Amino acid sequence: MSPSNFAVTISKVRDGVAETLADDVAVEEPLEIRLGYSTPDGRATRSISITMRTPGHDRELAAGFLYTEGIVHQRQEIASIEPCGPAAPDSGNHNVIRIDLANGVEVDLGRLQRHFYTTSSCGVCGKTSLEALRVAGAQSQHGNTTRFRRPALVGVPGALRSAQLSFDTTGGLHAAAAFSPEGDLITIMEDVGRHNAVDKVLGSLLLNNELPATGLGLMVSGRASFELMQKTLLAGMPLLAAISAPSSLAVQLAREFHMSLIGFLRGDTFNIYAGAERIVE
Amino acid sequence: MSPSNFAVTISKVRDGVAETLADDVAVEEPLEIRLGYSTPDGRATRSISITMRTPGHDRELAAGFLYTEGIVHQRQEIASIEPCGPAAPDSGNHNVIRIDLANGVEVDLGRLQRHFYTTSSCGVCGKTSLEALRVAGAQSQHGNTTRFRRPALVGVPGALRSAQLSFDTTGGLHAAAAFSPEGDLITIMEDVGRHNAVDKVLGSLLLNNELPATGLGLMVSGRASFELMQKTLLAGMPLLAAISAPSSLAVQLAREFHMSLIGFLRGDTFNIYAGAERIVE
Repeated sequence: MSPSNFAVTISKVRDGVAETLADDVAVEEPLEIRLGYSTPDGRATRSISITMRTPGHDRELAAGFLYTEGIVHQRQEIASIEPCGPAAPDSGNHNVIRIDLANGVEVDLGRLQRHFYTTSSCGVCGKTSLEALRVAGAQSQHGNTTRFRRPALVGVPGALRSAQLSFDTTGGLHAAAAFSPEGDLITIMEDVGRHNAVDKVLGSLLLNNELPATGLGLMVSGRASFELMQKTLLAGMPLLAAISAPSSLAVQLAREFHMSLIGFLRGDTFNIYAGAERIVE
Repeated sequence: MSPSNFAVTISKVRDGVAETLADDVAVEEPLEIRLGYSTPDGRATRSISITMRTPGHDRELAAGFLYTEGIVHQRQEIASIEPCGPAAPDSGNHNVIRIDLANGVEVDLGRLQRHFYTTSSCGVCGKTSLEALRVAGAQSQHGNTTRFRRPALVGVPGALRSAQLSFDTTGGLHAAAAFSPEGDLITIMEDVGRHNAVDKVLGSLLLNNELPATGLGLMVSGRASFELMQKTLLAGMPLLAAISAPSSLAVQLAREFHMSLIGFLRGDTFNIYAGAERIVE
């Protein structure tokens, strides 16, 4: 059994007839992220997040979280990432992870409260959210000349499914992957949480010194929300492809920042919501 | 066009042939929730949350959010819920909502930071999460004798789909519903966010003085996570049914608090992960 699966005995009911079966469900456990950083007086430690995640690739998850929250921007700002304390007694998983920033890295923890939003007296709106991204320094992908081959693109969902280690047994994990213009999967991650799967992918790229990933696309197994589009943009990736539907604000973000947004990528069919020029034969 | 749909022009690509089409996507916009409450010195106002949601039923969303965060427990603790300030200039939606608590209602805003978790020196784990729920006063459903008829239960997903106003045109909205043991849908809500759809349902029940809803079940269009199971429990509902898979911690929570948990409810088939005694012919 992998640490992402949990064995349960269930009752399967079909047409009124119940059968007792052994089954697997996806593991969901809390992960606490603690941050160690320099202050004028020495070092400080603070607990900055508790997220419900599927254990595995916790280092990548923590690194990706710090990156997409705007706390770190490059690999060398991280001095170490280590599990903290003993394993949880019930599952054996380490559910606290500690990231220590390199000496001298300045940290703006106010960001964690703000989450890129500003509240103006005129009220928040879609425009405010996009404006806040611009203020946070997100770069338009206007000049990004990466092109994705259509036949390669339509092959990505199948490759993602074959690579999903747990999906077949639990049906409960979201997947995310970074892929090349030729359709090769560079990094694949799974999690009960959509955002966590994406943070793990971006954390993996960060730890390999591959961010910004201006030559890669991001694929997600579910829907494309504003927040996932925002993470894609912050990672410098010009394209987000989703198996399901995008939201209005995801479309607006993509158009405003000259990104490509693909939805309903299934079989040989997909919808282009923004940035059609990046899809070539 | 409903306020939950947003019209876009897209390029639909099928077998390499592109066609320009008019399409709808689900609207996603931020909602800021402001709380007005009494202090020893008079009244205070604080912004307590910004969530990405689909406009519509914002009053229910705000009320449900306050309920599931443990800030309010009964209808009469809320004096008023009103949109605040002018409509957003781009969409015309009101994206700030203000809830005023009745005079004398004590409020523990520390809860909003804690999110029911405690961090002990031994590290967080599944057990810690369940323990924290107990500390927060969540009641076991052990003595809840509500029974759900199997033929009624299998009809709920179909009824939910027929009732979903936007799903057919956008494919981007999650749905949640409260339903009776006979399979009647009591309240149905949609949102780009799974948690928001559930908060809207619970907020609607709260505003109608129907919480705790010990005689109703909750249905969700996606997966059953710890957080959704937790909301079901806090609402006093004995059963959560999901179209997709549950997580390990959702199963553990259900068993610990004697709730019923149904997954993969499709056609005449479903899995019972906990509380099989509540399903009868």
